[in-house]
Amino acid sequence: MSTGQLIVPVCLADLEANAYASLPKNALDYYRSGANDMQTLRDNQDAFERIRLRPRILRDVSKVSTETTLLGHTVRTPICFSPTAMQRMAHDEGEKATARAAAKAKTCMILSSWSTTTAEDTIKAGKDVPVVPESDSSALPLYWFQLYVYHDRAAAERLIRRVEKAGYKALVITVDTPFLGRRLADVRNVFKLPNHLTMANFETKESNITMANVLEKTQTTQQKESSLAAYVVSQIDPTLSWKDIAWVRSITNLPIVVKGVLTAEDAKAACELGCEGILVSNHGGRQLDGVLATIDALPEVVHVANEYSKKQNRPIEVYLDGGIRKGTDVLKALALGAKAVFLGRPVLYGLAHNGEEGVSLMLELLQKELELSMALAGCCSTADLGPHNVQFGPYGSPYHPAHQSRASKL
Amino acid sequence: MSTGQLIVPVCLADLEANAYASLPKNALDYYRSGANDMQTLRDNQDAFERIRLRPRILRDVSKVSTETTLLGHTVRTPICFSPTAMQRMAHDEGEKATARAAAKAKTCMILSSWSTTTAEDTIKAGKDVPVVPESDSSALPLYWFQLYVYHDRAAAERLIRRVEKAGYKALVITVDTPFLGRRLADVRNVFKLPNHLTMANFETKESNITMANVLEKTQTTQQKESSLAAYVVSQIDPTLSWKDIAWVRSITNLPIVVKGVLTAEDAKAACELGCEGILVSNHGGRQLDGVLATIDALPEVVHVANEYSKKQNRPIEVYLDGGIRKGTDVLKALALGAKAVFLGRPVLYGLAHNGEEGVSLMLELLQKELELSMALAGCCSTADLGPHNVQFGPYGSPYHPAHQSRASKL
Amino acid sequence: MSTGQLIVPVCLADLEANAYASLPKNALDYYRSGANDMQTLRDNQDAFERIRLRPRILRDVSKVSTETTLLGHTVRTPICFSPTAMQRMAHDEGEKATARAAAKAKTCMILSSWSTTTAEDTIKAGKDVPVVPESDSSALPLYWFQLYVYHDRAAAERLIRRVEKAGYKALVITVDTPFLGRRLADVRNVFKLPNHLTMANFETKESNITMANVLEKTQTTQQKESSLAAYVVSQIDPTLSWKDIAWVRSITNLPIVVKGVLTAEDAKAACELGCEGILVSNHGGRQLDGVLATIDALPEVVHVANEYSKKQNRPIEVYLDGGIRKGTDVLKALALGAKAVFLGRPVLYGLAHNGEEGVSLMLELLQKELELSMALAGCCSTADLGPHNVQFGPYGSPYHPAHQSRASKL
Amino acid sequence: MSTGQLIVPVCLADLEANAYASLPKNALDYYRSGANDMQTLRDNQDAFERIRLRPRILRDVSKVSTETTLLGHTVRTPICFSPTAMQRMAHDEGEKATARAAAKAKTCMILSSWSTTTAEDTIKAGKDVPVVPESDSSALPLYWFQLYVYHDRAAAERLIRRVEKAGYKALVITVDTPFLGRRLADVRNVFKLPNHLTMANFETKESNITMANVLEKTQTTQQKESSLAAYVVSQIDPTLSWKDIAWVRSITNLPIVVKGVLTAEDAKAACELGCEGILVSNHGGRQLDGVLATIDALPEVVHVANEYSKKQNRPIEVYLDGGIRKGTDVLKALALGAKAVFLGRPVLYGLAHNGEEGVSLMLELLQKELELSMALAGCCSTADLGPHNVQFGPYGSPYHPAHQSRASKL
Ligand SMILES: Cc1cc2nc3c(=O)[nH]c(=O)nc-3n(C[C@H](O)[C@H](O)[C@H](O)COP(=O)(O)O)c2cc1C
Ligand SMILES: Cc1cc2nc3c(=O)[nH]c(=O)nc-3n(C[C@H](O)[C@H](O)[C@H](O)COP(=O)(O)O)c2cc1C
Ligand SMILES: Cc1cc2nc3c(=O)[nH]c(=O)nc-3n(C[C@H](O)[C@H](O)[C@H](O)COP(=O)(O)O)c2cc1C
Ligand SMILES: Cc1cc2nc3c(=O)[nH]c(=O)nc-3n(C[C@H](O)[C@H](O)[C@H](O)COP(=O)(O)O)c2cc1C
Repeated sequence: MSTGQLIVPVCLADLEANAYASLPKNALDYYRSGANDMQTLRDNQDAFERIRLRPRILRDVSKVSTETTLLGHTVRTPICFSPTAMQRMAHDEGEKATARAAAKAKTCMILSSWSTTTAEDTIKAGKDVPVVPESDSSALPLYWFQLYVYHDRAAAERLIRRVEKAGYKALVITVDTPFLGRRLADVRNVFKLPNHLTMANFETKESNITMANVLEKTQTTQQKESSLAAYVVSQIDPTLSWKDIAWVRSITNLPIVVKGVLTAEDAKAACELGCEGILVSNHGGRQLDGVLATIDALPEVVHVANEYSKKQNRPIEVYLDGGIRKGTDVLKALALGAKAVFLGRPVLYGLAHNGEEGVSLMLELLQKELELSMALAGCCSTADLGPHNVQFGPYGSPYHPAHQSRASKL
Repeated sequence: MSTGQLIVPVCLADLEANAYASLPKNALDYYRSGANDMQTLRDNQDAFERIRLRPRILRDVSKVSTETTLLGHTVRTPICFSPTAMQRMAHDEGEKATARAAAKAKTCMILSSWSTTTAEDTIKAGKDVPVVPESDSSALPLYWFQLYVYHDRAAAERLIRRVEKAGYKALVITVDTPFLGRRLADVRNVFKLPNHLTMANFETKESNITMANVLEKTQTTQQKESSLAAYVVSQIDPTLSWKDIAWVRSITNLPIVVKGVLTAEDAKAACELGCEGILVSNHGGRQLDGVLATIDALPEVVHVANEYSKKQNRPIEVYLDGGIRKGTDVLKALALGAKAVFLGRPVLYGLAHNGEEGVSLMLELLQKELELSMALAGCCSTADLGPHNVQFGPYGSPYHPAHQSRASKL
Repeated sequence: MSTGQLIVPVCLADLEANAYASLPKNALDYYRSGANDMQTLRDNQDAFERIRLRPRILRDVSKVSTETTLLGHTVRTPICFSPTAMQRMAHDEGEKATARAAAKAKTCMILSSWSTTTAEDTIKAGKDVPVVPESDSSALPLYWFQLYVYHDRAAAERLIRRVEKAGYKALVITVDTPFLGRRLADVRNVFKLPNHLTMANFETKESNITMANVLEKTQTTQQKESSLAAYVVSQIDPTLSWKDIAWVRSITNLPIVVKGVLTAEDAKAACELGCEGILVSNHGGRQLDGVLATIDALPEVVHVANEYSKKQNRPIEVYLDGGIRKGTDVLKALALGAKAVFLGRPVLYGLAHNGEEGVSLMLELLQKELELSMALAGCCSTADLGPHNVQFGPYGSPYHPAHQSRASKL
Repeated sequence: MSTGQLIVPVCLADLEANAYASLPKNALDYYRSGANDMQTLRDNQDAFERIRLRPRILRDVSKVSTETTLLGHTVRTPICFSPTAMQRMAHDEGEKATARAAAKAKTCMILSSWSTTTAEDTIKAGKDVPVVPESDSSALPLYWFQLYVYHDRAAAERLIRRVEKAGYKALVITVDTPFLGRRLADVRNVFKLPNHLTMANFETKESNITMANVLEKTQTTQQKESSLAAYVVSQIDPTLSWKDIAWVRSITNLPIVVKGVLTAEDAKAACELGCEGILVSNHGGRQLDGVLATIDALPEVVHVANEYSKKQNRPIEVYLDGGIRKGTDVLKALALGAKAVFLGRPVLYGLAHNGEEGVSLMLELLQKELELSMALAGCCSTADLGPHNVQFGPYGSPYHPAHQSRASKL
């Protein structure tokens, strides 16, 4: 724990600065890094800055509601939590603290397969938070489970049964990680999970490979690098394809969200397979460096989802994560068609700040920014937001994303 | 008052540098900040730099006149003063000094609702300046009043009566501030007005809420932030909508200027409601961060105003503020259709320099730059300026703004 | 003379660096400054960098000739010297040294009206250089005179007679200087010509206003600024218009080059008036800041000149100055239709380096770069160069400038 | 040898940093420099960064093969070695070490005409590496020879006979070097080959001009500059044109690759002449500064080659070098139609690191990055890659390069 000077946070960047000053190097590097040159990591934020807002004036904005629904469940805000692995490196309460903050905010948390708390313990922590019913809203906390599909399909199925039973309401299948992206700092650090922590959903007494022993068990001759990268090689199934999604579909009634779509082409495939949701994501710039920024990819995916919604006469929801740090980022994503946005690193920095309270503070700061942004843009509800609120650059840039859509040419 | 080294100002940037070196932090931060990341604050100036001038040569430019009319009144220059709150933090004479400088230059000053001098005292200071009649010009000083509409409509009406009586010639209704933008430095400073100053137009003995007591009166439990933000929450009416503009229209004969329009869509609404003027403004980047730079928004608003002028057979004037720091900025705005431009921060930095004389010096420097720019661009009067004088970028960029106008598609 | 460390120059940037380290501040600031924020000064060079070359291979480039003609005279290189005032501030031999370097290189020098050597003495210095006849070339030195038109037309006519008699072969009328651009460093320095130097073409015993007395004679009340700006106000005629060009045309047989054209519109006027040449120039970014970079303006002017050449069945030549520092800059300008390019500041830095030898060294470095660039681009002569050699930006940018020409829409 | 701190390399940038810290200035400057301002050197890498990847998900990527064929020979990877002169300045084993690393990787090495090891010794070092046959692959090492055509055509022919006999499988004729580009650091250093090294393919006892004596023999009067530039002037034939390529074609059966093509126009000429391959190259930014980045030039060349392949019913291969430093750079080039990419400087930095092992390490790092990038992009083989995997910039940019192809307009 470094002794860097901490500041009173008034925005998410402050929480990030504090985390940089306080987290141990091993954990900080793991959390903050993107793959290789981290071009996509930067572009995720830069792409939001390139978009200009077109605010509307003189509308009654005395009441701004951010309430929305996710796959039929009402939540209080479209700002939700992405799955991030190993939250207990940031704060001892880790995933439990996050679950409680999500409960209090009545938002949606996606738990990572690689949590350092079991799926059961995490959701229990959230459910134990007393939910005060409110007259003006039916919003409730919501938990989804993020699935990495392992070589061992029987184990995958067992895990699905566990999360169904525990009360998770959707499976978020991460599809951008057949192998782990190369994060140079982790390679240099020979990153591994601290000894007192485990991949809680998998590391039973019987498990052969753990984050602690993976390097020894798998890499006798090679140069030691990131233990997580080695773990992924040994455990995750890189043959995963659309037919496996069909298999998951066949064994569970939980709705399926595909996490990691960046093109109209793949959005089309997800729709045809009957997925309920698409999470536009580049894994926070941690997998393939140089891919599209998520906000740049969003319009074409939304375009496809809308077309299939009509054709198949069912709702298909599109979400986005990557680079969300300000209320106006949320607003831009919603305006371009995202039903909700998800936060990765900010949750970790909130945890590092002060566990559950830190996460709540982080969310409150961002929620306030979103509400203020909506009011100043002349929008009282998420339904008010649309492509007319944004423009892809300064004077002369297109603002109807459909304008240059490629989807129509597929 | 810091003891930073001051320089002899030869341009507005020098006055700004001097203000940075001399103003107390609380006031300086309030004056200079934009909202959040201050992206729009920077973009307001950057957008001017992106525009290239297309100068015309070999025209007789021995006599350059910048005289123009604003809602029927002749002023000597299209460089006018935006409303800025609390000018007495910059110099003890505050709004009175500004009013006198405006009188001497025979330009237009918009007084802020939140002045630290009453509307009556301010205009009196201006009117007391002896105006030397000139043979070649009928230009005279001009005062407009900027209105924030409070919850208490009776109070709003009383204020309108006062400014009518005092001699203000137009109401400038600011419509981009249903809530105060989040300016991080003010939040960190827990900004408030120094004790010896008041919001002079409102804080009578009877007033319940003042800048001094607003935090105590309104925020017992919450974290303390900017007093002004709290004041706005407690006083300003966020339900304000076009029907309230209609109401103001119904109770006064003063012409109405809507301040804070950034889109063709809202320009259209203002024209349909019969407003006499539209001030394209993003509040100096202090409200919604990430909106269009004002010079990027100007063409579409001008396009709409011109169409409605024709349709409704009456003049509708368009003005601009935000980022004007150089003579060529003024020239670009006029070329793109602004009837006049308004200055926010430069007036405050002029005051900080030396009260009335500082404001006069600031205006003189900018006026000289404008006249020289016009001469070098081959233009003798504001009527000579048009879209043919500018180009939105280097080789190959469009220069007829109408070219890509969206207004026509509304 | 500062004692900064000098380097052995291998490119023009080195000569500039050396001049910065050695010239007195008053002169250096006068030479290097652009107007106001110096945006155009930078853009003149940046615009060249935005252009990409499209080199052709496998052509016999064993013999590269840069020879060309200017208004019928053969010169050895299209790299010529722009008129720059007061060269004796850089080196005691000043304009004479430049004239000799031009003679040796058999190129064209334009002498400034504001030379610190008389028109007669300058050309004599050049003519005294023995010209060795060469079998393979009829190239000869060439001298043109740059004219500022003074209030006093009789004086203007007397000056024209003198330069005709002295042997100058064209009049280059500078049309972008009805007033002097505002160069902030000169304002701060209260720039004036050192006492031992004079504006040699004008300051006779009888002359009333000189650079030495202009401030006293003209600015009793005002703040003192640049003496040259005051001099221009008192002497130069800002009523100058196309009819005055017609007047010059009527009193002399010298061909006329208009210096300071930046738009197709003005190119058209120059052609209609019968001018023989057009020098695309923004006065090295010293007049109106924010205008088009000269290389960005060139294509539209060339387009107009070519059309009028055909229509009027006579050659109309287009030249360019501004930002030329590298062989590839020259190549790009020639490819885009300039018959020759002119150098302003590099000549002064050459003089500062070592008088005549410094100018020769500067020209030799640039000439070598041009020849090498032409060979590497697959071009053996200036006639080989064309728009196909350049592209206005990276992948996907237009390369046929005519593509987006505005001239055709005039 | 400087004593800068070296780091454990995990990417090519680390190897470059180490080389900067360890190589002697004379060699380092020669290796790293680009011509003049080094604009193209930077643009080669920047242009890759401007391109965004469009990854495909949910494809079985458990087996990724990078195997490909080059002119009919199978190699294990499309990452090959460009010819770079004088490798023994980086490591005493020089070209032999590179040849061995190429052999172990079963890739293609192009030997430079200006090697500091003879063509015969180099290929022998490679062939001596025992090649372990593999069941799943017929990949084998491959050697090509890069030819500079000298004035003395008999010598050129003798050299061709030697390399045919030694086992080189193609002639790569470098066509962008009729003269040497001006690399300022080499000029300042008066660069020359260290005394113990020679241009091994040419400097026999009989040879009149060597790198050691060229300055003395050729430049009695002139300023001393780079010896290599002088050497080129004295030895290389700048009359080289397409008819000389036809001559080479007529005297050998080796396939011919033209190295240094950057435009569709020249690609057309190469195809018409019957060349088997085109290497899109700007000589690593060392020849004409300001030309197209190679990745920006690639699409138009590929377009032409594909059309001629169809028309002439024979394969014409296109390769690229310049700026390749990351796995995603390789992927982008392949997606845009390159059959293989070649590395210049990275090989030298690998040599500087640790001779043969350093080159192998460099290649292994890049190969791993390529394989991982392909898997994360959803591509299992080079055949899977196509223009649909890339986009020339962020939201709204074209991604089908053919879209704006100029080739079709030729
Ligand atoms: C430290 C860290 C761990 C992550 N772990 C997972 C994970 O286990 N599963 C997953 O699907 N995504 C994971 N992600 C990706 C996030 O779900 C999300 O896509 C990304 O963080 C969003 O970008 P942001 O951090 O800019 O908000 C992780 C991201 C980070 C930063
Ligand atoms: C310190 C400060 C106070 C302001 N107060 C007001 C105000 O009371 N009412 C208002 O309508 N606008 C206010 N504005 C916005 C200005 O009227 C104007 O839109 C803006 O300052 C123009 O941008 P500029 O500062 O770049 O010139 C204020 C701006 C500043 C900088
Ligand atoms: C110090 C200086 C003095 C100049 N004096 C004159 C002048 O007397 N007459 C004129 O027409 N242009 C004058 N110019 C403009 C030059 O002719 C030319 O347009 C400009 O310098 C070209 O740009 P460059 O300096 O980037 O090459 C002057 C420029 C400089 C830098
Ligand atoms: C030090 C050095 C020496 C080179 N020597 C040769 C050469 O002898 N023949 C040749 O055709 N290209 C030569 N090149 C160019 C390379 O073949 C190749 O085009 C270039 O290096 C690719 O760019 P990169 O260095 O960014 O990978 C040389 C390049 C360098 C950096």
